[in-house]
Amino acid sequence: MSYFDAASAAPLHPVAREALSASLDDGWADPARLYKEGRRARLLLDAAREAAADAVGCRPDELVFTSSGTRAVHTGIAGALAGRRRVGRHLIVSAVEHSSVLHSAEAFEAEGGTVHRVPVTRTGAVAVESYADALRPDTALACLQSANHEVGTEQPVGAVAGLCRESGVPLLVDAAQSLGWARVEGPWSLLTASAHKWGGPAGVGLLAVRKGVRFAPLGPSDERESGRAAGFENIPAIVAAAASLRAVRSQAAAEAVRLRELTARIRARVGAVVPDVEVVGDPERRLPGIVTFSCLYVDGEALLHELDREGFSVSSGSSCTSSTLTPSHVLRAMGVLSEGNVRVSLPAGAAVEDVERFLAVLPGAVAGVREKLGAPAVPAQAPVADAHGDALVVDALGKRCPIPVIELAKVIGDVPVGGTVRVLSDDEAARLDIPAWCEMREQEYVGEEPADRGTAYLVRRLS
Amino acid sequence: MSYFDAASAAPLHPVAREALSASLDDGWADPARLYKEGRRARLLLDAAREAAADAVGCRPDELVFTSSGTRAVHTGIAGALAGRRRVGRHLIVSAVEHSSVLHSAEAFEAEGGTVHRVPVTRTGAVAVESYADALRPDTALACLQSANHEVGTEQPVGAVAGLCRESGVPLLVDAAQSLGWARVEGPWSLLTASAHKWGGPAGVGLLAVRKGVRFAPLGPSDERESGRAAGFENIPAIVAAAASLRAVRSQAAAEAVRLRELTARIRARVGAVVPDVEVVGDPERRLPGIVTFSCLYVDGEALLHELDREGFSVSSGSSCTSSTLTPSHVLRAMGVLSEGNVRVSLPAGAAVEDVERFLAVLPGAVAGVREKLGAPAVPAQAPVADAHGDALVVDALGKRCPIPVIELAKVIGDVPVGGTVRVLSDDEAARLDIPAWCEMREQEYVGEEPADRGTAYLVRRLS
Repeated sequence: MSYFDAASAAPLHPVAREALSASLDDGWADPARLYKEGRRARLLLDAAREAAADAVGCRPDELVFTSSGTRAVHTGIAGALAGRRRVGRHLIVSAVEHSSVLHSAEAFEAEGGTVHRVPVTRTGAVAVESYADALRPDTALACLQSANHEVGTEQPVGAVAGLCRESGVPLLVDAAQSLGWARVEGPWSLLTASAHKWGGPAGVGLLAVRKGVRFAPLGPSDERESGRAAGFENIPAIVAAAASLRAVRSQAAAEAVRLRELTARIRARVGAVVPDVEVVGDPERRLPGIVTFSCLYVDGEALLHELDREGFSVSSGSSCTSSTLTPSHVLRAMGVLSEGNVRVSLPAGAAVEDVERFLAVLPGAVAGVREKLGAPAVPAQAPVADAHGDALVVDALGKRCPIPVIELAKVIGDVPVGGTVRVLSDDEAARLDIPAWCEMREQEYVGEEPADRGTAYLVRRLS
Repeated sequence: MSYFDAASAAPLHPVAREALSASLDDGWADPARLYKEGRRARLLLDAAREAAADAVGCRPDELVFTSSGTRAVHTGIAGALAGRRRVGRHLIVSAVEHSSVLHSAEAFEAEGGTVHRVPVTRTGAVAVESYADALRPDTALACLQSANHEVGTEQPVGAVAGLCRESGVPLLVDAAQSLGWARVEGPWSLLTASAHKWGGPAGVGLLAVRKGVRFAPLGPSDERESGRAAGFENIPAIVAAAASLRAVRSQAAAEAVRLRELTARIRARVGAVVPDVEVVGDPERRLPGIVTFSCLYVDGEALLHELDREGFSVSSGSSCTSSTLTPSHVLRAMGVLSEGNVRVSLPAGAAVEDVERFLAVLPGAVAGVREKLGAPAVPAQAPVADAHGDALVVDALGKRCPIPVIELAKVIGDVPVGGTVRVLSDDEAARLDIPAWCEMREQEYVGEEPADRGTAYLVRRLS
């Protein structure tokens, strides 16, 4: 088996396992108690906080342990917004944040707040100027991930943090994907992370709030974790999280070089071994272990299933693998192809042989899915198309990704150069994937307009 | 060592440790993923939910795992209140609930809700009629613990649940102290519990919401745990929690009998071996492992320290062991003595020899503390007392529990029968402990009145 989905959850690091087992004996009691078992638990908790704070680059009393990275984000954003309620009710996030950040923003909007979503380039990065433009006198908080979880693109957090500091606005950095690799540099105000992303156990998130940052925890709280994370502390898991972070960091520099070579190899080869592939994300400013690509005319879920059968565990931002029938918000914000999307995120220690085998297996897996779907590479008759004014009409209503794009590709040769194809679709993915197909195929995307049912997407044949 | 504080946190059960270790290999991946590792994690999670739901007595799809019992309570109360917002904004809780319930109630009040706190008898139990009286047409939710965490008194949850059902009001039962012993009977609507109370690991709470109960989770949420517990599931800990609950339950009937005998022995003997002790809580309707008593003229923290030196880990509801300088809200609601309070909560498997040694050690520990404080049993000169009208005045301003009561006890013999002593105190514990002393000593507590500084407590000598 080759588990290539470390960006979702990394397998437990051996140091985490060892620390967890060892601290089950000494870390189960209530650290707020004064008796022997409580004092032992408190010592473990304090030592873990020291170690984790050192890795984060903050003071121990600025760091609390939450029950997950998601909880750290929810608490961090809500607390920072409440702490600066008098300043205003304006929140800035990037369009490609983790869902925990975006869900927090939606909850804030539901309560009457205003959210500005900063767009990204086609590589998934925000421009520093976009944050500069977004800052307002009533901005209570800005959020920016250190690096993107779906495409690996690193964000200019240092520069954005500097900008925010100049404006007196706190910046919350979601460092979930990067904290195992390095500290987040720059004058950030709040930072969140999740232990199971670096090989720590589930059940531990980090929330750092710099001294001087106004912070007002919401809802019921208790005296634990400075009033910022209610409920009995999970000390064995916290100890394991801190120990594994330290262990992972000690190998990070060398392992980053190694993984970066492996993902660079995938980036370079995938287009050569699989036709009609778009590799997405920044080729340089990126996390070491993540590479993401999308395959035209491919059903993401079917491809994941094929790869799983071959022993590869990867994830996808395609709409066909989600319950919402919409493509990943990250791919949408980037404006790149979402169909047949695959994210490979290598865990530390991933073997070069497994990566080579992945590259060997992938072409067959993609071809198999395409064949089943009747993709254009396979000789097949174009479906019946009716005329609509001057345009050839493809009725793909009721068809899900990637069928609308496949039907478009099949008929584009049937219209003369300069002629148009009108694709009718009620699949949300078509809105992203038809323009993306045009860009890949160098055809002109004219635009969309409402149709009797669904939406009509207009494409002009250029070549 | 003898750890007698299981009501705070039980040591990890061997079955929990084994299940935790075993599921670290198969339970680390994201259960929402479709690949092999994800499917394995999902299977573990589903099996744990089945087992836990069986122990709770609900359907698996009614049960979610939270990150702690506290989180289960916070989410359960907030969600049930929000789900019935249209019915009204009235919440009923007992005065002796766990702080997580009371903190939720305070948060609800801060948002404009109304909270009715049901009083308890001197044994710590609510009367069913008090809940009947408290129910209103706009009552959104009622809460009642299955048994009290500080004194062990069982509450009439079945009867109160029936009453609430008749009125169409959901009842949330905090079963943290009792779920390891048995299911909660009766038509409750929501139930919460905490795994580390029964020997499961930290980091796992249970929240059951019966089908048909209106429930609206607040704040940002995600697709995990039916939208009721955001963040990556801690599957190894959840598996360990469910396995240990099953294991504990299989021994519960026999162990309950054994522990009940041990706590009955403490109840019966403590008054014989230590003078001036009040055993609190219901002698019959109580949890098997908890016994609580208070010692006159004793500083709770000093006594805990003495007992810790002797190898006994217990807790206390005395004000002198808390950071707030107020006695436990449970002891206050019961109107019993809070000074020198000791809660013994035996873990499963507690040895009879350790209990006997506790009873052997306790008298010396109490006597030592009393001697240091100059308690009345020790020959000592009464402090100077001024006249105030007809009353003898004891100035205990600036003195903390148990000093005000000690000074009162020292001078009561200096006034004639029928005469009064006026104790000036600014210690919050005096408000509870001076009346409690009067009850124990069969003197008349006349009442309190504001003084130039602090409060004046009037006591009339009767014998």
